[in-house]
Amino acid sequence: MANPVLILYAHPSPNRSKVNRYLFQAATALDFIRGHDLYDLYPHMHVDVAAEQQALRQHGAVVLQFPLYWYSAPSLMKEWIDTVLTSGFSHGGGEQALAGKKFMVAVTTGGGFNAYADGAVHGALLSTYLAPFEQTARFCGMHIELPFIVQGAGDIAASAVNEITEQYKSRLAGLGE
Amino acid sequence: MANPVLILYAHPSPNRSKVNRYLFQAATALDFIRGHDLYDLYPHMHVDVAAEQQALRQHGAVVLQFPLYWYSAPSLMKEWIDTVLTSGFSHGGGEQALAGKKFMVAVTTGGGFNAYADGAVHGALLSTYLAPFEQTARFCGMHIELPFIVQGAGDIAASAVNEITEQYKSRLAGLGE
Repeated sequence: MANPVLILYAHPSPNRSKVNRYLFQAATALDFIRGHDLYDLYPHMHVDVAAEQQALRQHGAVVLQFPLYWYSAPSLMKEWIDTVLTSGFSHGGGEQALAGKKFMVAVTTGGGFNAYADGAVHGALLSTYLAPFEQTARFCGMHIELPFIVQGAGDIAASAVNEITEQYKSRLAGLGE
Repeated sequence: MANPVLILYAHPSPNRSKVNRYLFQAATALDFIRGHDLYDLYPHMHVDVAAEQQALRQHGAVVLQFPLYWYSAPSLMKEWIDTVLTSGFSHGGGEQALAGKKFMVAVTTGGGFNAYADGAVHGALLSTYLAPFEQTARFCGMHIELPFIVQGAGDIAASAVNEITEQYKSRLAGLGE
């Protein structure tokens, strides 16, 4: 692949994951993917900023992969964003280290598609809840790709997980071109 | 006041705050307010869940006060949400400890009002970025109050801070009724 892909993966309870861990395992078996399992790397939430910034520089595409927790990412994903995307690196002072790189969110939700709408139990379209992440990347000059979304992840059949994993690999291959 | 108010305050760089710290200081001087300065209480991001849940039970209104960081709250605010609002406390299993309480976001932004719109530098209305927090409270059965918003907080005049502080105290008094 011309374009190596960096996946930042944040799941606070990886052993309870029904979908995410399989997606991450399959993805990181591909030779053009590098995966950072943030809760494994940083169990005390102390992100190695220099290492993360160096990894970003070495990759042409960045994926944030996480289960939706309270209509957003788990907190360590946000700590990564807050500490790694700093003025003088990703923006500010004429620096824009991520400009032109591809960006994709890969998100799973426990609730199904119909639960995410005005007046439904989860109140708004999923796109509303992904807006902070996509706008962060846009502010850094990245190209926003359509998100990879798995809804109803709590009761998904094992056979469906295989199919979804293939779809994910296909999307990642697209990012790697 | 009939209704004691709990403020959860999250600012990772409190000494650089131009507005938030004055709002929090003025608020916590009021006798019906209890303030938890999360970055002061939990510098290693290890939230005392039992203490936070007990405080929530003792108050009739809850305020999340923070500066907008990358279109969301600073990460410790999210860690508080992820760890404190658990199944069997705020939702699930017939429990809904926060039901009927008032909820308000108090947020400051560095960018001005006009920067938050479709096509503007910050991409969407501020209400879009507050949606995850308000929907979290709504899911827990809380009554959502209009947010308290200060925009352009980076270059605000000292005289304006006094006026804004009075407005904040007035809003808090309303929550306390």
